[in-house]
Amino acid sequence: MRIRIDLAYDGSEFSGWATQPGLRTVQAELEAALATSLRIPSARVVCAGRTDTGVHARGQVVHVDVDDHVLAGSVGRSRQTPAEALRRRLNGILPPDIKVRRVAEAPAGFDARFSALWRRYAYRIVDDPTRFDPLHRAHVLEWSRRLDVDALNAASDHLLGQHDFAAFCKRREGATTIRTLLDLHWTRDAHGVVEATVRADAFCHSMVRALVGCLLAVGDGRQPVGWPHDVLVRGVRDPAVTVAHAHGLTLEEVAYPDDAELRARAEQTRAKRVAADAHSDATSGAQRGATGEDASDG
Amino acid sequence: MRIRIDLAYDGSEFSGWATQPGLRTVQAELEAALATSLRIPSARVVCAGRTDTGVHARGQVVHVDVDDHVLAGSVGRSRQTPAEALRRRLNGILPPDIKVRRVAEAPAGFDARFSALWRRYAYRIVDDPTRFDPLHRAHVLEWSRRLDVDALNAASDHLLGQHDFAAFCKRREGATTIRTLLDLHWTRDAHGVVEATVRADAFCHSMVRALVGCLLAVGDGRQPVGWPHDVLVRGVRDPAVTVAHAHGLTLEEVAYPDDAELRARAEQTRAKRVAADAHSDATSGAQRGATGEDASDG
Repeated sequence: MRIRIDLAYDGSEFSGWATQPGLRTVQAELEAALATSLRIPSARVVCAGRTDTGVHARGQVVHVDVDDHVLAGSVGRSRQTPAEALRRRLNGILPPDIKVRRVAEAPAGFDARFSALWRRYAYRIVDDPTRFDPLHRAHVLEWSRRLDVDALNAASDHLLGQHDFAAFCKRREGATTIRTLLDLHWTRDAHGVVEATVRADAFCHSMVRALVGCLLAVGDGRQPVGWPHDVLVRGVRDPAVTVAHAHGLTLEEVAYPDDAELRARAEQTRAKRVAADAHSDATSGAQRGATGEDASDG
Repeated sequence: MRIRIDLAYDGSEFSGWATQPGLRTVQAELEAALATSLRIPSARVVCAGRTDTGVHARGQVVHVDVDDHVLAGSVGRSRQTPAEALRRRLNGILPPDIKVRRVAEAPAGFDARFSALWRRYAYRIVDDPTRFDPLHRAHVLEWSRRLDVDALNAASDHLLGQHDFAAFCKRREGATTIRTLLDLHWTRDAHGVVEATVRADAFCHSMVRALVGCLLAVGDGRQPVGWPHDVLVRGVRDPAVTVAHAHGLTLEEVAYPDDAELRARAEQTRAKRVAADAHSDATSGAQRGATGEDASDG
């Protein structure tokens, strides 16, 4: 059976999502906690958004496959459902910077990565020194120059839609950099925090942070409103674009279709990736690689 | 001249506000940073709310008296005002869990402690495990039982006004426990966080946390709505009242009268404290102590 787990974490003290030898990662902590609480030798999870070092999540989604008897068998005499009992046990084992919010048996065809319709990230910035907040310093970037939200929105509008975001992606051999940017807009809240909402079918490596870094140069008046679009069209990384700090970025939500559409969506995503990567190979002459390992990591 | 400083801090790693030998405190950090940035041997600050270990602040206010030439003399050739230059220098020296938001020459008669009209604290709780947020874990209490905001408000209404809050105060010889509770209400925000707003002319030691701890027993159904008022009227600490954890508490705001009223307010507050403490001595037979060192610490 497949289990879906929704979780939140403070990325400050993690070397990102993906397991790396000798480093503290969210995936390794979660897999160890799953093995302990399910009393199995090891567990392997697949996530919707492979967040980078220092990036946070409130809406991360993973799946893990376990033998049918494991979940019910590990519950003991609790009156809770097996899923709720697992959620509590996981939170009892996990460190305080990871919190499991939901555990549920996954519907048929669910794949945390390939069934996803889109990922939504938020990037938060405080640009008013009288509003700097030590309680939020781990996930809100302090910016010393005032930001013009209207300029940020005007510049962002030109980036929406399907484009080759190569200018904002870390180059990976054989992986496509074509993405559909569904939403990119900026607001200022009652506490003076400027927030970017960035939503796409998927992101390539460091894409959100490169977009935000580029747009911030418009927001604080160093570049004209049309500059981010010019960078996009040129299609190569521009040394003038600074990748924004990781700690302002949070994976807020991953959306999935209705249960009946899950399997079809996963197959469609896989096929699209294979085709796009094949095309990418043909046009760029790059070596044929694995299908894009770009489930999105902001 | 007197300087007013507004500051915010994450209280997690501090042994409270007040300087204590061998312990890390906000006062000691701030006084050291002031001495360094003003190039004076030492500085002594007076604060509006002496927060306890683990309690946070967004709206702490202090004053410090310096010789007239010190502020202007320490600025160097900056084009900023001396006050703005000092704010920047302080933030350059202070650790990341303290942030100075404003520095200004204080108006005549200003006293951070005695001129204050009221202090406002917020206590934040998340009672829904699907909303537990590691990014807010340092300042929002996780509560495992669901809270009834209507019951919390009904119970709180009976505590408003001037009362002897001895039942909710740590007893101090010769100090009055009469306070005026100006506001005590509860809301639930869009993120599921339950927030108490607690506002009074001043608070005695651990008063907000004792009030919140008492009310939480009503909010999660362990006690009837009338219980907190019964405790108040009995006037002695009830062992059934649990003092709520420090980390959910934040000093949000300190209010002062118009500039013309500052000196009168300070004199009035001092006189009231002396009178109340004398009365308290007479009725309780306690030794005459200093005037209540209860500038408020939640």
